[in-house]
Amino acid sequence: MDDVPGSMGTSAGFALRLGQTIFSSAALLFMSLGGQFYSYTSFCFLVTIMGLVIPWSFTLALLDGYSVLITHPVRQKGILFIIIIGDWVLLTLTLAAASSAAAVVDILLRADGSVCPPKICSRYLLSTIFAFLSWFLSMASSLFNLWLLPSL
Amino acid sequence: MDDVPGSMGTSAGFALRLGQTIFSSAALLFMSLGGQFYSYTSFCFLVTIMGLVIPWSFTLALLDGYSVLITHPVRQKGILFIIIIGDWVLLTLTLAAASSAAAVVDILLRADGSVCPPKICSRYLLSTIFAFLSWFLSMASSLFNLWLLPSL
Repeated sequence: MDDVPGSMGTSAGFALRLGQTIFSSAALLFMSLGGQFYSYTSFCFLVTIMGLVIPWSFTLALLDGYSVLITHPVRQKGILFIIIIGDWVLLTLTLAAASSAAAVVDILLRADGSVCPPKICSRYLLSTIFAFLSWFLSMASSLFNLWLLPSL
Repeated sequence: MDDVPGSMGTSAGFALRLGQTIFSSAALLFMSLGGQFYSYTSFCFLVTIMGLVIPWSFTLALLDGYSVLITHPVRQKGILFIIIIGDWVLLTLTLAAASSAAAVVDILLRADGSVCPPKICSRYLLSTIFAFLSWFLSMASSLFNLWLLPSL
């Protein structure tokens, strides 16, 4: 079994999962603090999906951290397959949520300040950027896991 | 070499590619006819991506049709790999474009009729639905091709 860096049970994999958890939490935090995100369907969608991604990434980060500590990666083909499927589903949803939030932020930024005060608007923008970063890291860890799959 | 239905060089694969071409053309047509899509960044993005998806899907549909006619699928690992990569890139872009267009359509439908007359608005909506259908078919053919890859 060759060791693909960034795949499940490696320290790079742990770092990727931790990054996903942090970025999704930041996206959720910036979206829900202060603003009135529930006025826009896309922002509600983003908050829902981030609420799904955080526990998923956190659990897998714990699993990876445990694997690194005991220096024996927990790797079974069935488990890896389920994780890859789950990753792809959340990946798709995260991308959809992030792009729809970006479209709404674009419209809000072009409108005059009465619709969305600059302070709130920049929070929405930051939240969208963090959601895209979380998507990017998820993409990386899911590709590394897919690469690992045939060798198991 | 086992024959995965829906993968490259099969008649189901040809049908999937043809469906993608038709749905992307419909999305492009409904978006660009009559409306003022260039006022919204997301709609411009959708038109650009559909303009990329149509030639890609059409070329692969021709290749599949040719393979079905000569009853000998053109299958080489390198070519299949390039097609899978290209499919995933366009898949991601199509999903991003379709979801951002959906977010804008949602905002336009909630606004009063002055922003977007019902006739134009329903065209935008139809275009978004066709873009999602095209994404769905691309997803199917890319998964079938990925399934075929290890057996080559």
